Amino acid sequence: MSDPAPPVVILDKSQMAENIGAVARVMANFGLSELRLVAPRDGWPQERAWATASGADWVLEGIRVFDSVAEAVADLNTVFATTARPRETRQPVRTPREAARVLYDDRASGLGVGLLFGGERAGLETTDIALCQGIVTIPIDPRHQSLNLAQAVAINAYEWRTLVLDAPPPNFREGEPPASGALMLGMYEHLEKELDAAGFFHPPEKFRSMSQNLRVMLGRAAFTAQEAATFRGVITALSKGRGRVLARLAASRTDQSSD
Amino acid sequence: MSDPAPPVVILDKSQMAENIGAVARVMANFGLSELRLVAPRDGWPQERAWATASGADWVLEGIRVFDSVAEAVADLNTVFATTARPRETRQPVRTPREAARVLYDDRASGLGVGLLFGGERAGLETTDIALCQGIVTIPIDPRHQSLNLAQAVAINAYEWRTLVLDAPPPNFREGEPPASGALMLGMYEHLEKELDAAGFFHPPEKFRSMSQNLRVMLGRAAFTAQEAATFRGVITALSKGRGRVLARLAASRTDQSSD
Repeated sequence: MSDPAPPVVILDKSQMAENIGAVARVMANFGLSELRLVAPRDGWPQERAWATASGADWVLEGIRVFDSVAEAVADLNTVFATTARPRETRQPVRTPREAARVLYDDRASGLGVGLLFGGERAGLETTDIALCQGIVTIPIDPRHQSLNLAQAVAINAYEWRTLVLDAPPPNFREGEPPASGALMLGMYEHLEKELDAAGFFHPPEKFRSMSQNLRVMLGRAAFTAQEAATFRGVITALSKGRGRVLARLAASRTDQSSD
Repeated sequence: MSDPAPPVVILDKSQMAENIGAVARVMANFGLSELRLVAPRDGWPQERAWATASGADWVLEGIRVFDSVAEAVADLNTVFATTARPRETRQPVRTPREAARVLYDDRASGLGVGLLFGGERAGLETTDIALCQGIVTIPIDPRHQSLNLAQAVAINAYEWRTLVLDAPPPNFREGEPPASGALMLGMYEHLEKELDAAGFFHPPEKFRSMSQNLRVMLGRAAFTAQEAATFRGVITALSKGRGRVLARLAASRTDQSSD
């Protein structure tokens, strides 16, 4: 068996072009090649990235730029968010070693896999973490947490390559693979639109945290594409049913008022 | 049991102060703190290191500077040389993960342990690798070998910390610990001095490679301090014996000529 294609690296809102180059360099060191940028602060391409890439030009030349994390992960099935501090999202938290193993198995099953990294200062937003299938936490000393972006990529890329070189037989998933990021996002947005129409998000400023909690809860179930479609059927049935109930109520009121 | 003290990091002939700072930063990230410099190109301290250390000031402030690798490892028992290309030294080659385990066990036995890294361009000289107890090779993709110095330190430091956090019971060495670097160097120099006097290094320009081969051969035996002393006794006996033989030969010639 040839080695499975390595995970896509996604950098959210990176600031310094030098860091993008340094990330490309360590990706090449460990055999990763596909880099995606979400809303890089200074646009792309940036001349200064080439100096720090130290010859890993093919990684920089293959970069694709996206406006949002949702778009950047739309074709991927398993994406882990790398963040030092597990947030309040109740998602599985893995070490880089454990994460590499899951990504390896999923990739060997033909799924699209990726690793998401936050910007140099702000890190990742919970909204974007909620779109991922889990969290990777590098075992940083709590006394000195500031880990350089390229170092964080390097640790994960190193674990991937170490795993591939050891070449264990992949553990294939039992049954159907999980749906793509795009399919899940479509399902989430469908649900949220109907819930919003039903007045579920109350008070309105709670929309964000409530929708995140829902996404994380449902995300843990790892729906297949078929199950996501089924769930959308559920949403439609419930909301249409509510519509019918409302219509009937309205009709009966009209009947009453016409009495 | 409290965690064993982490390995000392030794940078040989580092060039950029920024890289020294970046190394200090990743050491702090993974709980390492003792950094030694061998002949840094621009001297020490260098103001620019503090900018890239990102707050790991205690590592920079604790730096000690040495003139040679031999002096920098004199008090250490187990030092691994980190190099991408295993040289012709017939030393054990380990992954960062395997090396961390050996260093962990040796440290838990009370030995001094360290990791030696070469300068940014030239890497390590074979002479210095020959003073180490083994080689660590990071599994770099052969298509893109240029690994940044701080990244190389990070991978090894990460493996140390991962190992410590998993906290396996240490495997203690059976029997006596290996001698210190200083003791071994003294033994090597003693041997080479006597061999040189005996005309062993022939032609003279072969001295360097021949002495390296001897050091690596003997180094693999991991002599205890007692064994190193015994071996020095052997050297003395052999060379004194030779001296006595020569004196007797000279005396008998004198006898013959006086006949």
